Amino acid sequence: MNTLGNKLKVTVFGQSHAPAIGCVIDGLPAGFAPDMDRVAAFMARRAPGQNAWSTPRKESDTPEILSGLVDGRTCGAPVAMVIRNADQHSRDYSGLKRTPRPSHADYTAMVKYGENYDIRGGGQFSGRLTAPLCFAGAFALQLLEQRGITVAAHIGKIENIDDAPPDFASVSREDLEALLRKPFPVFDDTAGMNMRQAVEAARMEQDSVGGVIRCFVLGLPAGVGEPMFGGVENRLAAALFGIPAVRGVSFGTGFAAAGMRGSVHNDPFVMEDGRVRTRTNHAGGVLGGITSGMPLVVNIAVKPTASISREQETVDLETGENAPLVIHGRHDPCIVPRAVPVAEAVTALTVLDMMLE
Amino acid sequence: MNTLGNKLKVTVFGQSHAPAIGCVIDGLPAGFAPDMDRVAAFMARRAPGQNAWSTPRKESDTPEILSGLVDGRTCGAPVAMVIRNADQHSRDYSGLKRTPRPSHADYTAMVKYGENYDIRGGGQFSGRLTAPLCFAGAFALQLLEQRGITVAAHIGKIENIDDAPPDFASVSREDLEALLRKPFPVFDDTAGMNMRQAVEAARMEQDSVGGVIRCFVLGLPAGVGEPMFGGVENRLAAALFGIPAVRGVSFGTGFAAAGMRGSVHNDPFVMEDGRVRTRTNHAGGVLGGITSGMPLVVNIAVKPTASISREQETVDLETGENAPLVIHGRHDPCIVPRAVPVAEAVTALTVLDMMLE
Amino acid sequence: MNTLGNKLKVTVFGQSHAPAIGCVIDGLPAGFAPDMDRVAAFMARRAPGQNAWSTPRKESDTPEILSGLVDGRTCGAPVAMVIRNADQHSRDYSGLKRTPRPSHADYTAMVKYGENYDIRGGGQFSGRLTAPLCFAGAFALQLLEQRGITVAAHIGKIENIDDAPPDFASVSREDLEALLRKPFPVFDDTAGMNMRQAVEAARMEQDSVGGVIRCFVLGLPAGVGEPMFGGVENRLAAALFGIPAVRGVSFGTGFAAAGMRGSVHNDPFVMEDGRVRTRTNHAGGVLGGITSGMPLVVNIAVKPTASISREQETVDLETGENAPLVIHGRHDPCIVPRAVPVAEAVTALTVLDMMLE
Amino acid sequence: MNTLGNKLKVTVFGQSHAPAIGCVIDGLPAGFAPDMDRVAAFMARRAPGQNAWSTPRKESDTPEILSGLVDGRTCGAPVAMVIRNADQHSRDYSGLKRTPRPSHADYTAMVKYGENYDIRGGGQFSGRLTAPLCFAGAFALQLLEQRGITVAAHIGKIENIDDAPPDFASVSREDLEALLRKPFPVFDDTAGMNMRQAVEAARMEQDSVGGVIRCFVLGLPAGVGEPMFGGVENRLAAALFGIPAVRGVSFGTGFAAAGMRGSVHNDPFVMEDGRVRTRTNHAGGVLGGITSGMPLVVNIAVKPTASISREQETVDLETGENAPLVIHGRHDPCIVPRAVPVAEAVTALTVLDMMLE
Repeated sequence: MNTLGNKLKVTVFGQSHAPAIGCVIDGLPAGFAPDMDRVAAFMARRAPGQNAWSTPRKESDTPEILSGLVDGRTCGAPVAMVIRNADQHSRDYSGLKRTPRPSHADYTAMVKYGENYDIRGGGQFSGRLTAPLCFAGAFALQLLEQRGITVAAHIGKIENIDDAPPDFASVSREDLEALLRKPFPVFDDTAGMNMRQAVEAARMEQDSVGGVIRCFVLGLPAGVGEPMFGGVENRLAAALFGIPAVRGVSFGTGFAAAGMRGSVHNDPFVMEDGRVRTRTNHAGGVLGGITSGMPLVVNIAVKPTASISREQETVDLETGENAPLVIHGRHDPCIVPRAVPVAEAVTALTVLDMMLE
Repeated sequence: MNTLGNKLKVTVFGQSHAPAIGCVIDGLPAGFAPDMDRVAAFMARRAPGQNAWSTPRKESDTPEILSGLVDGRTCGAPVAMVIRNADQHSRDYSGLKRTPRPSHADYTAMVKYGENYDIRGGGQFSGRLTAPLCFAGAFALQLLEQRGITVAAHIGKIENIDDAPPDFASVSREDLEALLRKPFPVFDDTAGMNMRQAVEAARMEQDSVGGVIRCFVLGLPAGVGEPMFGGVENRLAAALFGIPAVRGVSFGTGFAAAGMRGSVHNDPFVMEDGRVRTRTNHAGGVLGGITSGMPLVVNIAVKPTASISREQETVDLETGENAPLVIHGRHDPCIVPRAVPVAEAVTALTVLDMMLE
Repeated sequence: MNTLGNKLKVTVFGQSHAPAIGCVIDGLPAGFAPDMDRVAAFMARRAPGQNAWSTPRKESDTPEILSGLVDGRTCGAPVAMVIRNADQHSRDYSGLKRTPRPSHADYTAMVKYGENYDIRGGGQFSGRLTAPLCFAGAFALQLLEQRGITVAAHIGKIENIDDAPPDFASVSREDLEALLRKPFPVFDDTAGMNMRQAVEAARMEQDSVGGVIRCFVLGLPAGVGEPMFGGVENRLAAALFGIPAVRGVSFGTGFAAAGMRGSVHNDPFVMEDGRVRTRTNHAGGVLGGITSGMPLVVNIAVKPTASISREQETVDLETGENAPLVIHGRHDPCIVPRAVPVAEAVTALTVLDMMLE
Repeated sequence: MNTLGNKLKVTVFGQSHAPAIGCVIDGLPAGFAPDMDRVAAFMARRAPGQNAWSTPRKESDTPEILSGLVDGRTCGAPVAMVIRNADQHSRDYSGLKRTPRPSHADYTAMVKYGENYDIRGGGQFSGRLTAPLCFAGAFALQLLEQRGITVAAHIGKIENIDDAPPDFASVSREDLEALLRKPFPVFDDTAGMNMRQAVEAARMEQDSVGGVIRCFVLGLPAGVGEPMFGGVENRLAAALFGIPAVRGVSFGTGFAAAGMRGSVHNDPFVMEDGRVRTRTNHAGGVLGGITSGMPLVVNIAVKPTASISREQETVDLETGENAPLVIHGRHDPCIVPRAVPVAEAVTALTVLDMMLE
């Protein structure tokens, strides 16, 4: 349910307005000394209130580590981490139980959990729960880096504006490092500027926009993954759909492959410096569930933020009548930028888990 | 690895040229009397050699049930089923180990399993392994039907030709039943004819085409699924990527949601005959990993068949040189039509598993 | 690793000298209002320093609940709980890494985790980690009680003194309730007095003693459990061996069954008030992994406390020489009494998990 | 349910009177060439009808391998194996559903599965299902042998006669090899003769006897196993309770530890030839769930065969009255000798699984 992974297990807990959120990471190799400044920097990429394009609400997401580290090194015991939830607006949320917000989990959660469901701030379905995922992912990213593996994602698309990604067969570590240095991670900064304008335009119109995140993994050896239901695609998709608002996951050329001929889509094998590579990389680095040694490319579709401030239609569950709804509070008009590190975190955790198995 | 499901577990085994393929289904409710004629009819939809648009190679896929049924009813013990592999072309496959086929699992499987990998006919990665999945799925479909749940898929797209699906909010049981009666399951038969012509054109040019399958589940109650990593999307995606050639999985409006505004994408709640519904169904029937009671809609991108008969580039792993490759044998120029029942089977197994939990 | 259960999952974290210990409970039914006073009372049964027969070290085991409860009721999100570790003796533990304590996990943990293993106070292998298990178990016990199920254990044996348990076929709810009221839970209080004297005698001689805990579950319906590897015995044993110092788990007549004839050991079926019962209950309530409706009886062998204060032999891992060892600190001469609620907790969690599946 | 293991998974299927029994082994390393003569010899140790002390019923347990082997070597795909059930006595079993056999799974299986349960010959609860386990175990034993690990069990006790095992700290590979060569594996052949007489005496009196199997694993490196719920004890117990008739599992000194003082039970560490060993091995090779490098010792209590031919009491489920029962057919008066290879098989599978993780 709230646990990700087999050999490296991350259990996430908390609700938006509970005393705290956090996670337990079990299965980390002993003796690992995480660079906590980099963990904090990585988590900051997800935090709200930092940019024009995200909500001004501030979180003081200072993680407290409760176990698993001794003198800054993992000792073999699970690493437990807690982030206190401070200063929540204590207004009345009970109305939301009467009038569920369109395209939120309010309604389905109430069907499942009944009237005890914690609807305040989205409860356990809040995007805030991705903060512990980023904490755990930051550990995984450092452990992957020690193995020569780099994970980085760009904003592939926002509304109708596409970024210009490099060729999937030749994307380089330099490309990814440049991406990781950018506050708004796109390859084409003009596209990035247009994207930000699209977000701003949506905000002005009390609306929101969606987008696509594309995550690359470089340096993965060939041969990782299991056949059929244990493939890299199966595992990554199962994990990535755990990020709120994700509506689709595809690999390499993805859904566009459906419109292609085999003669175009097939990736010819070629020898290069004594290594087997493919000339193109429509496959996105996975064949038959197993990595090919080419860059892993995974595309993640993110829907527009469901919380918009213009009036919407919903139902009043008490009266059984249709009812108008206006959602208050501040919300990101586009969560794609903040979801980028979350996608990297979940990808890193899953890839590391498969390598540890 | 080769096992799908938690409470209802299907373990698939076999290789294309092993003595047999088959599966073990554990966790079926006792007392269920599968209609074996319908199981056979369902499996026939996947079988090759039946239509102009599939390979002429014949399989005699007669499943033999080894356990789990007594007097035609499940007794609580696992149902084991075997299909003998008959009359394989006994030609030499060893060349394939030298020159892996582009976009096949040949190369990655050899990296993983070494020289002992069974490359004949695609080994354990052969599409033939989907026959046992269809067998198991046929059981699940009947059990779902007993619960008032219908599963059916259409060919949403082949190459650049799109079918015209009904509105996701109002697709009806009649729509699905009509689909299930068609040998080439599309809503718009003109589009279907054009699709078949596109397949034929690809074949004539020694090429292949991909497509999209869209699977609907009707009658699912609201409240099925778990949050975060246990959601309907996580579970279905993890299962569907086990079907060979699947490159993407999305729900409802899917990747197109990335280009939409929230005001358009959000599905307004409305009361209808005392039930909560949504006016549109961009969500595809799932909110926060939990079913909403609206039709479940999952889209599956299928790449063009990798085996094409025109000459391709590959490498000779023995000499370490680039080498041309011509693949012999008969192959579907488009596997999408035969993958439709496989998608239904895997969807049914996963949905039933979640309901049994 | 540190997670117990399938549908009801408990993840335990912490080390004896980490900032905290705690657990995450996922899968509790929503709407459950735990009686926190009874949770505290249950945890107090495990806490040290309360009786003549346990170590005088005090713990202030006040659990703080971080998530999963709203207005005292479970909301469907995981319940996370933390207990701070206060006032640890800050003496030097590094010597223990040189001279591992006999029959402790010191040595094997160092082989597994290397020099980073947290040896202070037994690290993650400390009996203190059973406090979160008791917290989780207290929830499970209340949920079982709501279903008419009572779990209680007695001290079956300490050193060579046996308690006199009731007949396994006729043990009653009153028997168990009487047990639960006793600070030293035995059926025969004279035996109990002798046991306490045996513990005291061992302490006087700087030694320790082991014992047997026998746990009963009353009110379980027939038909719970799965065949082969999913049986009640498999699941309970897998869980109970997670309690430190447990060396054996058996059901009903247990190892004594090995010395019996079938004509004696077989439990004859009889009708009683229209219900099927067995005249005897050597089976301990389980046949073929599935509950029979008779009282569930599980026996748990606990070794004598490994930490004794008399001088012992060990090795100096630095010099590679044999070396004498004197263990300082206060230790229970017999952990059996404090392990009784732990056994009840783990049994309750496992039984509830099987019922929720 | 019917699947054992994580990384190495064995799924068992079949019923006593189904067309077949068998198993699927997933996760075997590719390139392994099992010695099939030794597999057959190992399976023969479990087969009935070979000795005075087992039932004269003959099985022709010739396993047919359906997949996973190419030219005698594992290819990475699951190994599926089938044994046909031949020549079952086709007499009427329906009476058993009315009058369940004491201490059999008849009754509990009917509660769980209803009237469709396959009661013929014990159905899926039949000891015959251990034949596939032995097949899979024979593979595991050979793979362990390649890693220098030997697994062998002796009959520790039958009724009230004990074998004389070697010291747990000094049991040698030669001891185990001698054991493996004996048709009746005991260390003390006089005790063995007395055991066989006890079995014969029970048979003469239409009765049965139980016993204890003790399994040793030599050559296991230190450091295998996970803490808390992932320990060697947890995993082995969960697996061994899957063998029919097992009532208890303990490690090293086991339940006798409960009667010992710590000063006696503790195993002093000593250096020997530069290696850390323990002078005694009451722990049975496991501390804190993790192997110590000392011989692994696991004790398994087996109840007396439930099927005895003397008249017993049961109930008639149709009339709701008590009723006498006479069980027909031939049954082992003691299944302990035939369960020895089963215990070795399950132990080997579990140990190998833990090492592959």
